[in-house]
Amino acid sequence: MPERNLEALFNPGTVAVIGASATPGKVGHSILSNLVEAGFQGKIFPVNPKGGEMLGLPVVPSIAELPSPLDLAVVSIPPRHVVDAVRQLAERKVRAVIVITAGFKETGREGYYLEQELTSIARENNIALLGPNCLGLNNTACGLNASFAAGQPPRGNIAFFSQSGALCTAILDWALGENIGFSKFISLGNKAVLDESDMLEYLRDDPDTDVIIGYMESLDDGARFIRVAREVTARKPVIVIKSGTTAAGAKAASSHTGAMAGSEQAYAAAFSQAGVMRAADVATLFNLAQAFSRQPLPAGPNLAIITNSGGPGIMAADVCEKSALLMSPLTASTVERMKTFLPPFASLYNPIDIIGDADAVRYRQTLEAVAADELVNAILVLLTPTASAQIVETAQAVADVAATCDKPIFACFMGQKRVAPGRELLLEAGVPCYGFPEPAIASVEAMYRHYVWKNSPAPVEVCYRSDRGRAERLIASARRSGCVEIVEFQAQELLRAYELPVPPTTLARTSDEAVAAAEQIGYPVVVKIASPQISHKSDVGGVRVGLADAQAVRAAFMDVTSRAQRLRKDAFISGCLVQAMAPKGAKEVIVGFKRDPQFGPLIMFGLGGIYVEVLKDIAFRLAPLTLNDAHVMIREIRSYPLLRGVRGEPPVDFKAIEDILLTMSQLALDFPDIYEAEFNPILVSHDGATVADVRVTLCTHAE
Amino acid sequence: MPERNLEALFNPGTVAVIGASATPGKVGHSILSNLVEAGFQGKIFPVNPKGGEMLGLPVVPSIAELPSPLDLAVVSIPPRHVVDAVRQLAERKVRAVIVITAGFKETGREGYYLEQELTSIARENNIALLGPNCLGLNNTACGLNASFAAGQPPRGNIAFFSQSGALCTAILDWALGENIGFSKFISLGNKAVLDESDMLEYLRDDPDTDVIIGYMESLDDGARFIRVAREVTARKPVIVIKSGTTAAGAKAASSHTGAMAGSEQAYAAAFSQAGVMRAADVATLFNLAQAFSRQPLPAGPNLAIITNSGGPGIMAADVCEKSALLMSPLTASTVERMKTFLPPFASLYNPIDIIGDADAVRYRQTLEAVAADELVNAILVLLTPTASAQIVETAQAVADVAATCDKPIFACFMGQKRVAPGRELLLEAGVPCYGFPEPAIASVEAMYRHYVWKNSPAPVEVCYRSDRGRAERLIASARRSGCVEIVEFQAQELLRAYELPVPPTTLARTSDEAVAAAEQIGYPVVVKIASPQISHKSDVGGVRVGLADAQAVRAAFMDVTSRAQRLRKDAFISGCLVQAMAPKGAKEVIVGFKRDPQFGPLIMFGLGGIYVEVLKDIAFRLAPLTLNDAHVMIREIRSYPLLRGVRGEPPVDFKAIEDILLTMSQLALDFPDIYEAEFNPILVSHDGATVADVRVTLCTHAE
Repeated sequence: MPERNLEALFNPGTVAVIGASATPGKVGHSILSNLVEAGFQGKIFPVNPKGGEMLGLPVVPSIAELPSPLDLAVVSIPPRHVVDAVRQLAERKVRAVIVITAGFKETGREGYYLEQELTSIARENNIALLGPNCLGLNNTACGLNASFAAGQPPRGNIAFFSQSGALCTAILDWALGENIGFSKFISLGNKAVLDESDMLEYLRDDPDTDVIIGYMESLDDGARFIRVAREVTARKPVIVIKSGTTAAGAKAASSHTGAMAGSEQAYAAAFSQAGVMRAADVATLFNLAQAFSRQPLPAGPNLAIITNSGGPGIMAADVCEKSALLMSPLTASTVERMKTFLPPFASLYNPIDIIGDADAVRYRQTLEAVAADELVNAILVLLTPTASAQIVETAQAVADVAATCDKPIFACFMGQKRVAPGRELLLEAGVPCYGFPEPAIASVEAMYRHYVWKNSPAPVEVCYRSDRGRAERLIASARRSGCVEIVEFQAQELLRAYELPVPPTTLARTSDEAVAAAEQIGYPVVVKIASPQISHKSDVGGVRVGLADAQAVRAAFMDVTSRAQRLRKDAFISGCLVQAMAPKGAKEVIVGFKRDPQFGPLIMFGLGGIYVEVLKDIAFRLAPLTLNDAHVMIREIRSYPLLRGVRGEPPVDFKAIEDILLTMSQLALDFPDIYEAEFNPILVSHDGATVADVRVTLCTHAE
Repeated sequence: MPERNLEALFNPGTVAVIGASATPGKVGHSILSNLVEAGFQGKIFPVNPKGGEMLGLPVVPSIAELPSPLDLAVVSIPPRHVVDAVRQLAERKVRAVIVITAGFKETGREGYYLEQELTSIARENNIALLGPNCLGLNNTACGLNASFAAGQPPRGNIAFFSQSGALCTAILDWALGENIGFSKFISLGNKAVLDESDMLEYLRDDPDTDVIIGYMESLDDGARFIRVAREVTARKPVIVIKSGTTAAGAKAASSHTGAMAGSEQAYAAAFSQAGVMRAADVATLFNLAQAFSRQPLPAGPNLAIITNSGGPGIMAADVCEKSALLMSPLTASTVERMKTFLPPFASLYNPIDIIGDADAVRYRQTLEAVAADELVNAILVLLTPTASAQIVETAQAVADVAATCDKPIFACFMGQKRVAPGRELLLEAGVPCYGFPEPAIASVEAMYRHYVWKNSPAPVEVCYRSDRGRAERLIASARRSGCVEIVEFQAQELLRAYELPVPPTTLARTSDEAVAAAEQIGYPVVVKIASPQISHKSDVGGVRVGLADAQAVRAAFMDVTSRAQRLRKDAFISGCLVQAMAPKGAKEVIVGFKRDPQFGPLIMFGLGGIYVEVLKDIAFRLAPLTLNDAHVMIREIRSYPLLRGVRGEPPVDFKAIEDILLTMSQLALDFPDIYEAEFNPILVSHDGATVADVRVTLCTHAE
């Protein structure tokens, strides 16, 4: 989408309202009157075949009579006429269109095709099209209220976009009640053309917007969203609610990765990798929006709490302890300074309890002392409405200090009725003030995390050398033979093409060959059933480990093959694989990926067997993985301490696992034809790792 | 405390105010004017040496001149005079005293002894004493405001008690703002005599109280709290905030149980075993209080959601899915009934989307149909303020249906400004109405859990037979020899006294004896170092398993003993234990307990080794364990599926583990002299369990 057309959507000089109406209560009337009342300074053209005049504006009888070029048209006419209208608007060289009208994709098959047509026309003519089935948009900076929503939000520095129109209505009503200011208010509707990524891209450079919040249900192009969002979050906070997370695992899963990697995991990985914060509910969304829009980021995790009562101070300290924040230490000079004015029973250590009879002066002096302490990164001022509390004066003191302080200051005035004037004063002054400590601390925590994100080094994407031709030939050959699954022996070839470490392995068709192979590899060895049809080998008792001599190998070969033949009469048994044993003390880990329909390859990491299957202790990230992604995902599983080594064990070779994760990421990106792949187990010791088994599933053509 | 004295505290006929003052702003004045203004119907006696008259009441110059007996005295005079005043009040045969005055235990050593004296006098004279260092109490049912708090809460059916006076002040201010009604409002202060358990006991039978909420920081007598709370929660919901949870693990821990079982775990177990609900923050506390106080309990988990917009419906369904509730199915006849009046695009399945143009009549018809559905246990009505929403009329329809329905109905009117009149109407009518779906669903979930708790069978406590004399002799003998830790071989004797299964074990002092023992037990065997000083045997490489023949046993004996001698020069080496191996496929679990200072023995259960140490996957309950406690704690650990069996394994013998847990509970109660004990590992197969190692630590006399 050319940028100037998005500019025409948000900052038009000329706006036509197709379907403008003189009848109050009609959508076409609400749009026109909203436009007029919000004080739009450009030219407005109501379009209606009846002609005449509306709200003092001359009515244009048809689209053909509109001036050309035109910046923006807002369309609110019956759905069957919309496509034709947009076509005519394209002829008038319109740059942007908002289709308010509902009755498209959301109503079924017929509407779906109607919307497809809309998309085509817009794309062919480079029209920035918002909707259909939306409320419209509001740009408070230029007085453009191109929506039929009731109520004009105050001007502010928060931009909001939403897939749900109903939620827009609710949020607008909420914002009016709380007097929250917005820079942009955007209802995306069916997203026939413009979607969340377009909005983020535009808002990134919007000087009126400091904080971006949104409500999302689904994304079509997840990869673009991550790319765009990452650029935006490096500059501005993005906070979203994502709902409608249903179990997408309809497709029968053929691996652990498949079973575990659902749409929810992909979205969580996407948000984390793009630095997008996720709010659990609307209340949190707005708490965070207010905090980010009014206060500077803390430059570290140290929180100081000033309170006039013990109980709430303890509550706040408890919440702080459970967060990513730390209870700040104080320098000796701050403590000395506070001693000069605080009464003897005051607690000079964090939480700083200045006692129930604290007046506004004591609050001000303490706050000044703490704000000047170089160890403190953020401050929470708690007040309970004791008999001697000076509520408004204390609020003023907090507001005064906050105005000249480059550290974030938050307030919590406990209660509601008596503290209300103090809270209003603080909100007015840009100091977020809450009724209880929890949301205050949650806000500081989110701001600290965002600070860390903004200041983390740029992600390093890694490209691994591979013999791509060799890998391509292998996949093509599997395709030709009609296979969808490529199992162990063939798949090892793929690993070698990617220079991944595999244990010495030989395919033995007879027990004699098995013994010969074992002699060559060296005892002890593993014997595994080899059959293209048997991917879950242990289900048929097809794996024997720790075979120490020829006799054991021979017995294992006979037993494994005869058992497989008996249990899986459909399977062609190639024989057995004879493989070197893992070094002693090696640990099993799993690396896999599954292709997510929206986001592409979702990479999985976990400890072998029980930890993944039973405890669901798994980390997910989307490809391409950065060096840091690989580093972090290994360390975020609960069972990570086992890899670090317990009871005096040495740590495993983390670098080797990271290499395999990054290679898996590259393999997934190199071959869109692979639907999912799993290295399971990978045997990792303190020195190196080998991929002991591998399974690759190709995309079926139905997909 | 005799009940009639608590009755005198809450429902006095006569009240004296010791330290009454004519000067507004003084505490002694606030108390008197609060008493008068709240409309107390009994007799009030202001006491002040100046005499005269206050607020139209004749002043009594001294305590000695008060009538006797007297129901209640509220004391607000300097701390050094309080003890003497209470002594004089005792002479006047006072039944209840509220000491408002601060300056006792909370100020240090001197105050601590002053408070001790207060406690003694009250106990000797059977005085129900509240405080000191408190705000007082308010019983709205009889117009008794015996506090100096600013503001009189409306009458209602919620009782509130708090250890923190500051929190009382804040909550009162909050309640006044939200117009929440209270039956009792109690500030506990330092709890010199009356504490949370006394309040619960009284409120259990209070006909004015339907819901009990509280704020707690610490408890002195945890066992009494559990006993009392359990009786109360069988009748009324109890919801508390507990804060001030610090790592109590100051005492160096000599076992896993010791390291893991902190004060936080004990409180969590106590609340769970007593059916007390815990709110994470004050907002949740009040959401739940309102919900429980105004709506009936749901008789099952099935929630139906009615909405006029898709997005919020999805959000609510998401929240429901993550809760203990279920999205309710609907009967075919409900669906048929709704078809007769809902428009074609409406969704007839839960969430029931009656579309953006829904008016109040459509809401009413739908709600009536859904309320009549026998599958539905609770209903949430969602409304977004669309252009055609009839906010007040819809609220009225919901209120009307709720008034005649025995199922809980909650509303969520999204937004704030436009929806405000609807929300007020609903709150007035007793239908909790929220701005967003999350708190509504959290309330229904808590009510459903409470319903399940109330309807669960009475707990069965089990008493296990034991040879107590044998156990006593063993502990006495350890004491005599100066041991604090009783390790394996001696401790096995304790297990036998409790008829617990132990594997055949022999103490061998030489390698010859070890071989002989192994021959008798039968191969394979385990060899373990035996030394009273070595409790962590694997730290010195002191355990060898799977020894298959005499040669292996002999080598292991030599190696283990020489290694122990080298590494622990302080230790007396008794030799080695030779023990039968666990049956093949046995799993390791740990059962332990540690004595909590407030709650007594805290029992722990987890899987062996890594699961407890690294993954902290542990369940806790307080002794005495009921059959159900033992059943549930085994099943609540994350790694429970491993015990149930994976990949076709048979489940372990759960009954055997439950037996051991119940025996541990009894052992802990039988011997207060044991500080902590741990059975680690217990080897459990599909048929039986044996305690393979045990360690017992006695209380040191310093404790």
